[in-house]
Amino acid sequence: MAFSPLIRQMVDALRGLPGVGPKTAQRMALHLLERDRPAAAHLAQALQAAIDGVGYCTRCRTLSETEICSLCSDPRRDDSLLCVLQSPADVWAVEQAGGYQGRYFVLKGHLSPLDGMGPEEIGVPALLDCLEGRAVTEVILATNPTVEGEATAHYIAGLLRPRGIKVSRIAHGVPLGGELEYIDGGTLAHALAGRTQIL
Amino acid sequence: MAFSPLIRQMVDALRGLPGVGPKTAQRMALHLLERDRPAAAHLAQALQAAIDGVGYCTRCRTLSETEICSLCSDPRRDDSLLCVLQSPADVWAVEQAGGYQGRYFVLKGHLSPLDGMGPEEIGVPALLDCLEGRAVTEVILATNPTVEGEATAHYIAGLLRPRGIKVSRIAHGVPLGGELEYIDGGTLAHALAGRTQIL
Repeated sequence: MAFSPLIRQMVDALRGLPGVGPKTAQRMALHLLERDRPAAAHLAQALQAAIDGVGYCTRCRTLSETEICSLCSDPRRDDSLLCVLQSPADVWAVEQAGGYQGRYFVLKGHLSPLDGMGPEEIGVPALLDCLEGRAVTEVILATNPTVEGEATAHYIAGLLRPRGIKVSRIAHGVPLGGELEYIDGGTLAHALAGRTQIL
Repeated sequence: MAFSPLIRQMVDALRGLPGVGPKTAQRMALHLLERDRPAAAHLAQALQAAIDGVGYCTRCRTLSETEICSLCSDPRRDDSLLCVLQSPADVWAVEQAGGYQGRYFVLKGHLSPLDGMGPEEIGVPALLDCLEGRAVTEVILATNPTVEGEATAHYIAGLLRPRGIKVSRIAHGVPLGGELEYIDGGTLAHALAGRTQIL
């Protein structure tokens, strides 16, 4: 083979990125080495800085480089709303969507007993702890609209019921811009059952 | 925005990779931070090692971490054949295709006077130097089958003619597995003109 060991190592390391196969990794390595070494140096430095500096917010458990993340420490957010999500990516998605002004709590994925992911592992006790002594009046369960996400939401709702906190689930229905013809039956059934009166 | 500065820097740096847009960069950053920090550390280290260690072979000018690359220093290769290519990626492609046992010479791209890429810039004098005192009997011009690649091959062929070295060009024709219906007219015309007798 024509690769020298360092290039081969670099190609292998690039394959560690999600969605990058051998051809793409090779193309990336060549591009960086031939045309953009500063970008490679910048990437190496940024990766190392992120690994060293990024941990988890002790309050909401999203990725954060400070002990309390910027969302938890922002005094303008509404303390009475708590949105429960499955991953930091979901926090980003909700923030990018805009409109939500409450707080967050991030679970470590969803309940999956067969994989050893019980309530303890995904952080349900921490969620209950975090409700103690806080003025949360509504918990919005925004786990994924999958079987596991629904089960997780259902389980958490059961735990919150005795506490007298209002618990809601994000709406299921047809996505904006979708065409009914191409939407699966389950979603369409949900959209019909959850219809809202407009006149 | 929900990104902390280190994560934002990491996402920006990942966008320096070819073919990686903002969404993909975000997904990659999250995957590395949440699920695979060792892969991120490995990538940071491999990138830095490659930037520091990989230069160019002084003989064939492909990417190499040694002064003379493994292909140039391999005594089993045929010194009488020299394949001229446009980039190190092309060397890898020819090597992966297998079957070629000669030497290589890598140009820095193709002639492009409007971009300031003349014969000097792409390394034509170095190619001529490298032919001096070597037992090359055939130069295979394997620049890309584009207008610029053809022009570059034509220019180099003109310089080699007085030296009495055999000069060849890679065959143009229909790619294996292609369907004639979908092949462009130029390629098809070349394939017909360059037909080979089989009986």
